Amino acid sequence: MSTLVTGIGELTTNDEARGGTTGRMRDAAVVLEGDAIAWVGAASDAPAADERVDVGGRAVLPGWVDSHTHLVFAGDRTAEFEARMAGEPYAAGGIATTVAATRAASDDALAANLDRLADELLRGGTTAFETKTGYGLTVDDELRSARIAGTRADAVTYLGAHLVPEGADADAYVDLVVGDMLEAVVPHVDAIDVFCERGAFDEAQSRRVLEAGRARGLALRVHGNQLGPGPGVRLAVELGAASVDHVAFLDDDEVRMLADTWQGGTGTVATVLPACDLSTRMPLAPARRLVDAGAVVAIATNCNPGTSYTTSMAFCVATAVLQMGLTVEEAVRAATLGGAVALGLDGAKPAGGGPDASGAGRARLPVGRIRPGARADLQVLDAPSITHLAYRPGVPLTSAVWRAGARVV
Amino acid sequence: MSTLVTGIGELTTNDEARGGTTGRMRDAAVVLEGDAIAWVGAASDAPAADERVDVGGRAVLPGWVDSHTHLVFAGDRTAEFEARMAGEPYAAGGIATTVAATRAASDDALAANLDRLADELLRGGTTAFETKTGYGLTVDDELRSARIAGTRADAVTYLGAHLVPEGADADAYVDLVVGDMLEAVVPHVDAIDVFCERGAFDEAQSRRVLEAGRARGLALRVHGNQLGPGPGVRLAVELGAASVDHVAFLDDDEVRMLADTWQGGTGTVATVLPACDLSTRMPLAPARRLVDAGAVVAIATNCNPGTSYTTSMAFCVATAVLQMGLTVEEAVRAATLGGAVALGLDGAKPAGGGPDASGAGRARLPVGRIRPGARADLQVLDAPSITHLAYRPGVPLTSAVWRAGARVV
Ligand SMILES: [Zn+2]
Ligand SMILES: [Zn+2]
Repeated sequence: MSTLVTGIGELTTNDEARGGTTGRMRDAAVVLEGDAIAWVGAASDAPAADERVDVGGRAVLPGWVDSHTHLVFAGDRTAEFEARMAGEPYAAGGIATTVAATRAASDDALAANLDRLADELLRGGTTAFETKTGYGLTVDDELRSARIAGTRADAVTYLGAHLVPEGADADAYVDLVVGDMLEAVVPHVDAIDVFCERGAFDEAQSRRVLEAGRARGLALRVHGNQLGPGPGVRLAVELGAASVDHVAFLDDDEVRMLADTWQGGTGTVATVLPACDLSTRMPLAPARRLVDAGAVVAIATNCNPGTSYTTSMAFCVATAVLQMGLTVEEAVRAATLGGAVALGLDGAKPAGGGPDASGAGRARLPVGRIRPGARADLQVLDAPSITHLAYRPGVPLTSAVWRAGARVV
Repeated sequence: MSTLVTGIGELTTNDEARGGTTGRMRDAAVVLEGDAIAWVGAASDAPAADERVDVGGRAVLPGWVDSHTHLVFAGDRTAEFEARMAGEPYAAGGIATTVAATRAASDDALAANLDRLADELLRGGTTAFETKTGYGLTVDDELRSARIAGTRADAVTYLGAHLVPEGADADAYVDLVVGDMLEAVVPHVDAIDVFCERGAFDEAQSRRVLEAGRARGLALRVHGNQLGPGPGVRLAVELGAASVDHVAFLDDDEVRMLADTWQGGTGTVATVLPACDLSTRMPLAPARRLVDAGAVVAIATNCNPGTSYTTSMAFCVATAVLQMGLTVEEAVRAATLGGAVALGLDGAKPAGGGPDASGAGRARLPVGRIRPGARADLQVLDAPSITHLAYRPGVPLTSAVWRAGARVV
């Protein structure tokens, strides 16, 4: 079964062979065959296909790749959000509220909540996403979180080191995270992550977590430099992490360091989380400085019930343009290919540990680009160009979405 | 035909008799009869009705009242937006691009563009909106703009004084605006407005425009203090304007002055336009200071193709909470009742000139509150509380909308 998508006024391919930031084409067409993209070119040269969809001059781009979410949870934190909007500062301890609710929830309830949010992601144009464990914090609860995550996510990250559980000794808890807990989850996850921040895990503890994950072949991620300067970025770079996320507080050396990791073609992605920055009333991450320095930037939602309860990649892209100084092309690239690179799903060899032996078993056609051989993930905007994502903030522009060749919106 | 809307987890009434910022009720029900609200109370006391809709615990609030838009235009200004995002500052002159496109467009094309945006407003939960002329700037083009505006808008504002047309002498153009042009449009409009800003109209010119409108019984509005300090706010207060809009640059005296207008029960609404502030990379208007001082604040989109091309009141509300320091309740009130007050559609005697003799002939049940006798305008959120409007920014939460008793979403 093949589908010709034609009448594309503006096509964002992210294909380096086509030049520019986003490999933009005008008056283009794309052929989907099965779950892959089979052909990309000028509409006038398009081959025949079983089915033909004319998008009437609209803009087409890769589906969003949301490389940082926390979707296996129960409950919400409305009251904490309201208190923060009334002036209370954010502190990592709020996570404990969600841990309690998640532990108390049934598997079915957790799966239903994940399905609700994964469906919402799809309706907003997100065709690939990562999600993390980290609201279980016991062997059994982290294991079931990882298993449930794998039913919907394209990549699963183990975040046992999200918070030291109430009453536990921090170093003893890290022993568990790098010991029995890691052993239990490792068949179900692609990466390991640590919340390296005051109030969570310090540098030495974070290093232990990441080294243990690397020894088991997992890719590495770090929540770093979110609430103030800290060792997260340096540690991520030193250990060859696939991404370091938040990065709101960066000095020039850290920016340079992140850019320099890319001299060999793979490196550490700097993932900015604009909705989280706004929702915690923290400074917006210096995305403009990162791009200017040559770092690879991803934009993600950080969807979670505490600090960033949105699935809207379009909102994040609009914020990145309006308030973080990226061009629309830079922001769109960061929210598609940038996320794919961070997840090691762009078709290059993944940075960091590499998830090759992780065994989650998900099909791995590359995402983040529209070119032959990529997974057939694309979104159609109800607009003539991607500029409208920032020019028309808040307007739901998702007009059609294909994921792995299936029309889902 | 009556409809019982029940299962309302949280009802925002804006009814002062119910207390608090938004007159919030739990476990409530509302009966709609024809185009009006007939009954509001506890779900357990609800009377019978012809039809029953259970909203399953969701939050219900008045439809948004968007009190500041410019929807009669042709073309867009994507290139200008892109240039601005690349660092070029905003200047009022960009309006001329839209004037040229609007003059060149047919009546049908202008009406179709208005319908497109009015439908988009409805889908986003906006059940009443104002729109302005101001892209014609000739007698004939302003007249047809006013006529077309009246086919969809709940309130129409004459903005002949939007920009001095290219090649015209400013004072001679003001003669036209207060003379033949005003005579032509007056049967079709409710209010008069002037862009009182460097690059547009100065204080003396603005005063002439407003006084001429007042003499013809129109309510007064001012675009003021948008791009820097200026005389707009003082002039609006002095002349008893219904609203002064933008208000990004206010000193403490001006804030106090706006609050003081309300000592007699009617006054000048301070209308903030968060999406416009972001899209022009200007400072966000000091909504927190205004509310603290006791001013009446409205939140509106300023939807127009130059400086704020969004119809999303939800985006404006989220921005007002996340970045301007309003509570969700204050922001929701400003985006519903605040707009209704600015338009003189809240059921009190309108401030300023008063549109009573304007003859546009639109039905005038009050809007902005959910209480008996109000127009049956309400929106249902796919969320348990209005807090989610800021807690989940960018997520389309509109679940159902009634306008004048008709289900439109
Ligand atoms: Zn996170
Ligand atoms: Zn305006």
